[in-house]
Amino acid sequence: MTSEAAFSTVSSVATDGDGRYRGEIHPDWTIAGKPNGGYLLAMLGRAAASETAHPHVIAASAHYLRPPAPGPVEIETEVLRAGRTASQVRARLLQAGQPCIESLVTASRLSDDTKPYWSAPTPEPGVVPFEESFRLPPIAPTGLAVTIMGVVDCRIEPSSLGFARGEPSGKGELRGWLALPDGEPFDPNSLLYAVDAFPPATLDVEPTGWVPTLELTAYVRALPAPGPVRVLHQAHLVDDQRVNETCWVWDGTGRLVAHGTQLAGIRLG
Amino acid sequence: MTSEAAFSTVSSVATDGDGRYRGEIHPDWTIAGKPNGGYLLAMLGRAAASETAHPHVIAASAHYLRPPAPGPVEIETEVLRAGRTASQVRARLLQAGQPCIESLVTASRLSDDTKPYWSAPTPEPGVVPFEESFRLPPIAPTGLAVTIMGVVDCRIEPSSLGFARGEPSGKGELRGWLALPDGEPFDPNSLLYAVDAFPPATLDVEPTGWVPTLELTAYVRALPAPGPVRVLHQAHLVDDQRVNETCWVWDGTGRLVAHGTQLAGIRLG
Repeated sequence: MTSEAAFSTVSSVATDGDGRYRGEIHPDWTIAGKPNGGYLLAMLGRAAASETAHPHVIAASAHYLRPPAPGPVEIETEVLRAGRTASQVRARLLQAGQPCIESLVTASRLSDDTKPYWSAPTPEPGVVPFEESFRLPPIAPTGLAVTIMGVVDCRIEPSSLGFARGEPSGKGELRGWLALPDGEPFDPNSLLYAVDAFPPATLDVEPTGWVPTLELTAYVRALPAPGPVRVLHQAHLVDDQRVNETCWVWDGTGRLVAHGTQLAGIRLG
Repeated sequence: MTSEAAFSTVSSVATDGDGRYRGEIHPDWTIAGKPNGGYLLAMLGRAAASETAHPHVIAASAHYLRPPAPGPVEIETEVLRAGRTASQVRARLLQAGQPCIESLVTASRLSDDTKPYWSAPTPEPGVVPFEESFRLPPIAPTGLAVTIMGVVDCRIEPSSLGFARGEPSGKGELRGWLALPDGEPFDPNSLLYAVDAFPPATLDVEPTGWVPTLELTAYVRALPAPGPVRVLHQAHLVDDQRVNETCWVWDGTGRLVAHGTQLAGIRLG
C-alpha cells in the first residue's frame, strides 16, 4: 500500500493554489514508453475533484492531444459550476507548458448503498476466478514493451487468451481481472484507470502495435468493494484507422462499478 | 429540406470571428420546454469543426451545467491542437453570458469507403421495418410535453412499445428508427443529435419525468447512407438517481455509423 509504485502515489497531485496542480508521471505506468491514458485521466480527476466539495468523480471525459513523457506535468483546472449534488470542472494536463490532454469532470458523492436500484442483465462478467486467469507479462506477443504490466496485475481468462497463441477468437472481447500494486483497494480515482487498463480488445481480432487513446469517457457508478475488479473490454468497429471500445468493470461482489468508452487510433489491414 | 424546422437550420451557427458563434435554440426541439442535449451538442460540434480544417466531428463529449431556454445562445471555441489528420477544439455554450454546456470535440475527415474493416457481431440492430414501427407522439404516456416528437419522426418497434401500455419489458432497451424533418439526410452533425434522440431507455423499466443528460459522448464512425437510421438505446444501471445508457445508430444499409454513451439524472423508486 505504501510502495513507491502504489497507484495512489503515482497518480497523486499537489496543489500550487489558484486551481493549479503538479504531478509526476511514473515511468513504470507506460506502454512503449507512453503513459497509459486512464492513469493520466485519474491524475486529472484527482485535481478536478479537489477543487470541489464533492469527493467522487462520477463522469470524466478526455480528448488526448499528444502523449506526455514520464516526468513532471502541470494540471490547470477551472470550476465550471459548483452545485449542491454535483460540480463540473475543466482540467488540462500540460508538460513543459504544452497542452497534452483536455478533460471535463463531474464530481459528486456516491452513496454507500449495497446494491443498485436496477441493472440490465447484459453484458455478463466472466466466470473464471482471479487465481485461474493468466497474468499478462510486461512484453506483448509483438515484442512491444508493456512496462505497466510489471506493476499492475492484469489477468485474462483462458477463453480470451487466444491472441497470445496467435489464435484470436475474432469476437473482439477480452475478459479477466485487474488488481493494483500491493492489493491497494480501488476507489473512484483508480476506476478511471481501470476502464483503460486492459490491452486493446482488438488483440482478439488481430495483433497491432501501440493503440493510442484519442477520447476516453468514464462513468463511476458505485464505490467498489475491496479486492480485484472484473473487466470486460469490447471492440465494436474498426474503420478509418480507429476503433471504438467499451469497458465494463465489476467489483468482486458482481456489482457494475464503472463503464468506460473510448475511441482509439489503430493500424490494421 | 428547406423548412424552418430543418435540422441543418435549427442547429446552424453564425460566426462573429475570434472563435465566437451565435445560434438560436428552436422551441420545437424541446422536452418539457428544455432543449434536447444531443441537439445542443450538434450546435457545439458545428461551431468547433468550423474552427478546423477537418469537416467531420468524430468524437464529442459534453458535460451539462444547466439547461438553456429556447432562444439565442453564444458559443465560444478554443482550438486545442490543429493536426494533420485530426484537430481538437474546446467549445462552450452560454446563454445571457452564463455557461450552460462545456464540450470537447475531435474533428477529422471520414473516408467514403463503403464498409468497415471489421465490426463485432453484437449488439444487433432491430428487425422491424420503418413503416411497421410506431411514431412517438409529442405527448408522453405520463403527460410530459415531448414537443420535439412533433418535428422528428422517432419510431419504436412494436416489441419495445410495452411502456406505452404500462407494460415495460424490464430489459431497459428501446429499438426503432429515426428520421429528420422532411427526410433531411443524416450527416456527422445530426448524428450527434441521433445518439440522444430516443426517449430514455429506462421507459422500458419504469415511467419517469424528464431525464436530464449530465454527460454525453458521441463517436461518429462513418458517413451515413441517406434515409432513416436504426437506433438501439440501452440502459445499463440505475443507481444514486442516475442512469448510464448506450445508444447505437446504424444507417439503412446496416452499417454502424454512431455510438453514444450518456450519464443522465433520473428519479425512480
